[in-house]
Amino acid sequence: MAPVQSKVLQNDQLWLNLFSTFFKNSKKTIFGGSLLLVILYLVKRRLRGTAPQDAQSQKEHFKKGKGNVDSVFFLRIIKLLKIVFPTWKCSAMADIILLTIFLVFRTYLSIWVAGANGRIVKAIIKLDFKVFLKRILELGMIAIPASFVNSFLEYLNKKLAIYFRSKLTSHLTEIYLKDMIFYQLTNLDNRVENPDQRMTADIEKWANSLSLIYSNFTKPVLDILLFSKKLAELVGWMGPTFVVAWYFFSGLVIKMVSPAFGKLTAQAQKLEGEYRACHTSLSHHAEEIAFFKGTSWEKARILSSFNDLITHTEKIMSKRLFMGTFDSLLVKYGAVIIGYAVVGLPVFGPGSQEYLKKIGNDPSAITRDYVRNSSLLINLAKAIGRLVISYKEIQQLAGYTTIVAEISNSLEDLNQGKYQRNLISGSEVYGESVSHIGGSIINLQQGERDSTKDYIQFVDLPIVTPNGDKLVKPMNITIKPGMNVVISGPNGCGKSSLFRILGELWPLFEGKLVCPPSDKLFYIPQRPYLPRGTLRDQIIYPHSKLTMLRKKITDQHLLQLLATVQLSYIADKPGGLDRVEDWSNILAGGEKQGIAMARLFYHRPLFAILDECTSAVSLEIEALLYSHCKLLGITLFTVSHRLSLFKYHEYILRFDGKGKWEFEPFLKEPREINFEIKKEENQKEEVANPQ
Amino acid sequence: MAPVQSKVLQNDQLWLNLFSTFFKNSKKTIFGGSLLLVILYLVKRRLRGTAPQDAQSQKEHFKKGKGNVDSVFFLRIIKLLKIVFPTWKCSAMADIILLTIFLVFRTYLSIWVAGANGRIVKAIIKLDFKVFLKRILELGMIAIPASFVNSFLEYLNKKLAIYFRSKLTSHLTEIYLKDMIFYQLTNLDNRVENPDQRMTADIEKWANSLSLIYSNFTKPVLDILLFSKKLAELVGWMGPTFVVAWYFFSGLVIKMVSPAFGKLTAQAQKLEGEYRACHTSLSHHAEEIAFFKGTSWEKARILSSFNDLITHTEKIMSKRLFMGTFDSLLVKYGAVIIGYAVVGLPVFGPGSQEYLKKIGNDPSAITRDYVRNSSLLINLAKAIGRLVISYKEIQQLAGYTTIVAEISNSLEDLNQGKYQRNLISGSEVYGESVSHIGGSIINLQQGERDSTKDYIQFVDLPIVTPNGDKLVKPMNITIKPGMNVVISGPNGCGKSSLFRILGELWPLFEGKLVCPPSDKLFYIPQRPYLPRGTLRDQIIYPHSKLTMLRKKITDQHLLQLLATVQLSYIADKPGGLDRVEDWSNILAGGEKQGIAMARLFYHRPLFAILDECTSAVSLEIEALLYSHCKLLGITLFTVSHRLSLFKYHEYILRFDGKGKWEFEPFLKEPREINFEIKKEENQKEEVANPQ
Repeated sequence: MAPVQSKVLQNDQLWLNLFSTFFKNSKKTIFGGSLLLVILYLVKRRLRGTAPQDAQSQKEHFKKGKGNVDSVFFLRIIKLLKIVFPTWKCSAMADIILLTIFLVFRTYLSIWVAGANGRIVKAIIKLDFKVFLKRILELGMIAIPASFVNSFLEYLNKKLAIYFRSKLTSHLTEIYLKDMIFYQLTNLDNRVENPDQRMTADIEKWANSLSLIYSNFTKPVLDILLFSKKLAELVGWMGPTFVVAWYFFSGLVIKMVSPAFGKLTAQAQKLEGEYRACHTSLSHHAEEIAFFKGTSWEKARILSSFNDLITHTEKIMSKRLFMGTFDSLLVKYGAVIIGYAVVGLPVFGPGSQEYLKKIGNDPSAITRDYVRNSSLLINLAKAIGRLVISYKEIQQLAGYTTIVAEISNSLEDLNQGKYQRNLISGSEVYGESVSHIGGSIINLQQGERDSTKDYIQFVDLPIVTPNGDKLVKPMNITIKPGMNVVISGPNGCGKSSLFRILGELWPLFEGKLVCPPSDKLFYIPQRPYLPRGTLRDQIIYPHSKLTMLRKKITDQHLLQLLATVQLSYIADKPGGLDRVEDWSNILAGGEKQGIAMARLFYHRPLFAILDECTSAVSLEIEALLYSHCKLLGITLFTVSHRLSLFKYHEYILRFDGKGKWEFEPFLKEPREINFEIKKEENQKEEVANPQ
Repeated sequence: MAPVQSKVLQNDQLWLNLFSTFFKNSKKTIFGGSLLLVILYLVKRRLRGTAPQDAQSQKEHFKKGKGNVDSVFFLRIIKLLKIVFPTWKCSAMADIILLTIFLVFRTYLSIWVAGANGRIVKAIIKLDFKVFLKRILELGMIAIPASFVNSFLEYLNKKLAIYFRSKLTSHLTEIYLKDMIFYQLTNLDNRVENPDQRMTADIEKWANSLSLIYSNFTKPVLDILLFSKKLAELVGWMGPTFVVAWYFFSGLVIKMVSPAFGKLTAQAQKLEGEYRACHTSLSHHAEEIAFFKGTSWEKARILSSFNDLITHTEKIMSKRLFMGTFDSLLVKYGAVIIGYAVVGLPVFGPGSQEYLKKIGNDPSAITRDYVRNSSLLINLAKAIGRLVISYKEIQQLAGYTTIVAEISNSLEDLNQGKYQRNLISGSEVYGESVSHIGGSIINLQQGERDSTKDYIQFVDLPIVTPNGDKLVKPMNITIKPGMNVVISGPNGCGKSSLFRILGELWPLFEGKLVCPPSDKLFYIPQRPYLPRGTLRDQIIYPHSKLTMLRKKITDQHLLQLLATVQLSYIADKPGGLDRVEDWSNILAGGEKQGIAMARLFYHRPLFAILDECTSAVSLEIEALLYSHCKLLGITLFTVSHRLSLFKYHEYILRFDGKGKWEFEPFLKEPREINFEIKKEENQKEEVANPQ
């Protein structure tokens, strides 16, 4: 049987000579690098292969936290990295260097442990109990730093994630909460939905993903380089090349043989969705279906949909049975056999004579080398596997990067006074709809605004929505303090829009607006905002307690305000003004409106916009509140249907809903009758209103 | 140095003698069993340790797909298992037996592969290339069945999952789509939310979880038993005992030393939630906050909340750094050292003399045994690890079981004519609310129903909602065919409730109801249900095409019906009556109502309830539709505000909204005026209605 053996050896040596001539002068590092390139190529192929092509599937990918890895991704990630690494000297850079050092350290530790394994087994083979104990002790000693390194790497990763999150959060929060940007982000610009989700969970996911990518990419790359190098030293460069070539080859074969599981799975998901839709429609239309006695119809549909799904799933299963066998044969057992071929190299390979001479034919030394080499090999194989699947993590990072970059870009645009809208329907000019405009960048400040005077003046100022809909023709009105105005008109005539333009929420497209600074113009909506906090906070909002104290306002004064709005009893419970509650849930509608009026009295602005803000308050208290406004010298802009309030105003601004406006001194009598009719209507409404 | 070694050996032997005397007569299988018991105890401890105590945290657990593993769980799972395994002879039982056989087979394969590994290495040590090749070939040969076994096990698991899903789905669908149960499930019984989610995704998850549990629990148990037995044969029972004892010991120590990470993580989640809530509230109240200029207040709150979160996360991180080191030291490196101690046993342990004599001091044989034993050991350790973490899978199964059992129980109750309601608010009797009732089981059929006559009769029949709210006092009315009735009354007076009782949707608590069989009583709601399907399906719903053909109705007739309702043009497009569209989205409101009327004409019931079902149709077409009803001899129950329809009716049933009812012949004149006023009101409403 010996001839066979030597023949194989000869063949092996033939190949070897060929290769060694070719690579004679190449150094091991060059070899490691080229090895890595091959693997990176493999990874890249995977990335390209799974990149979704159309917009729909891209959306699907986002849902699963995947994104395209393309040039857009790289531009975006670089932009975001510049935010988290403003300079090279930031604290995170030190952490990254530390992380890199520890990653290298861990790889060397793994190599050392592989050696230690070999030495322990050698002691077993040599039946040398003393050496065995000594080696075990060595391993025990190294275990302490090794355990620490592992745990510390994890710690550094988390630290980096927190650093990334903090840095990006504070950068974006700074812009988000600058002036009106948080409002404009969702109300003017329509590129970003759910900013709260993006500012919190999405940034966190991005940061975690980014911090992990570094380790999960660097570690296998380092491992492949260093393990290959070490293995090449021990068994020659054929060893690691065999392993990598095998993975390359088996990857290619599987790709060629494998049926289109992606398509099949997508089809299964579609069928699952249709089955679900049948059930959802049944739930949704339960009453109609029950009335129509459509049970058997729905049952037939549901069961047929379910059968389609099950049949398809069974089809996939059968295909997987074959591919799973093939896959396992190639990747699992194939790799093991290749592994044995590699660990057999020193003994059976071309350098065997030399090797055996060196170790003096000592079986325990062969065993030691076998154990060490197989440890290294297993680690190398694991590293290749990790690197190949790291494409999933890169896709995930790309997905999160897209989500985060979108809000970041929108915020930057808004910060530069621009916003972008994709108009779905056409716009409207004074009640008439005009043709389509399409998505476009719009400048926020085109008209002229002067917020330093103590009166309000509209100069050729139309009311235009951010969409470009022109609601009211250019107005020329001057309102001085003391000129209390009632605003009337049908729904959608531009009342709220006017307030939004006054309050700097909406852009000013044309004309000129003169108004007092924002702290002298106060707006009270129908449903006032009550933040989480103390009772005091509700009254002084948006002041903080510190501002209040600085203004020399005492709690006593706040209690008086509460008495004015007839809500003293709220402060009577334990805690008083310091009581913290979920105010917007525990207070009744009228109480909330009372608190909002107390807030108005606290701030005592020059002008106040009262937008149906006393609708839930009794008539007596309402009268009292309006009288108090007058007493404090607050000039009122009122929107209300209640006739009883009209007497507190001198002017009326009327919109007809078709672009026309009228501003004139108030005539009380004709309105009086008009209102009575309205009141009756409202009562009837409640009865007649269907549903 | 030899004395030291022998001393250690002596000590070892001392212990050994002690143990071996104790266990002298025990057989290996008993040993394996007791080993398993210890591990199961460990698993159980874990299960109990993580079981949530209060209802709140239980809910939290459900969200994460976890549930309590307690007696309730076992009762529920047994009940569900009885559904999927109605007899012992079902096809799935064969699959389970096959699965078990293959699981055992795989474990034996693993043991064989461990041996093969040893033999390959032995060949390497012996420098015997021929044997090496032969052994590799052997491994290659076994790789084919081994790969198939792995893939086939996966296939069987999926097959079982599909079987479980199909079985449970068809069982529950059968009940769900029996009579009115699908309606009653959400509208009467309020234990189950989102039945569509439960009937589809939740059942699927339960089935997958159940099918995996069997493998994921059986496999490690088998592995532990068989690997321990094999190891005990090779190195004596001390080996596996050491390993299990080490895991037991390290588990205990980690439990003792570890800080309460559960609590810390819960706290972190709470802080994360609060931070998110700040952002959500900002988004939600963006306009009010923008008007109040509350930016700096919100910013302060958001940043402070974020800081709390980050500080807490950093605290957890630092604690994890220490515990991670300790954990890794104990579980990872500790286990490796224990492993070496075990593989060292044959050579350095009590039976070493005998062992060395047996193998004739051959180093390659020692190596072979080392490699085989360490393979077995690694597999044993993995199996223990898998068994210990399988508690998560059991918890998951418990969670899904709860979700599925809930809907299964509710369906069974409804199938037995009972339903359960948890009343949050009190009930109402004729407009007056009465005291709280609380959750209770209610029988569906308490009154008497006779659905065989061709007239409608109420005998002492009150209108009572499923909540127990009494809306209308007991009525005594007889309506014969040809007596067309208009029903009037304010919102919530009981009109729809009456229809629901007539249509068997709601229970009959008292009195007696005589009515025609369900196919002679047709209900047309304001927004008709248009199922996914062909245009033909829309008209003949809930009939199938087959039923239609059996009734000798032709497509020609359907086209005539469409012509009657002035919708011929819908059938003119390509496809005609076979055209499949998303009808409820592509048709306008009036068209949908027209289709519903065509459906009514197709079915030609004795009685028809027309519930504002022509509100979007023009007056002319409406008149035409009502005339056609009369022509077909359909007796009408009409709810409508349109005066023009009143002339098609002879009687009026009036509810006053406070429990009183009136049934009388129709006087047309006074209503005429009343209606004109109403019409005017509606017009005004549109203008006056705020927002």
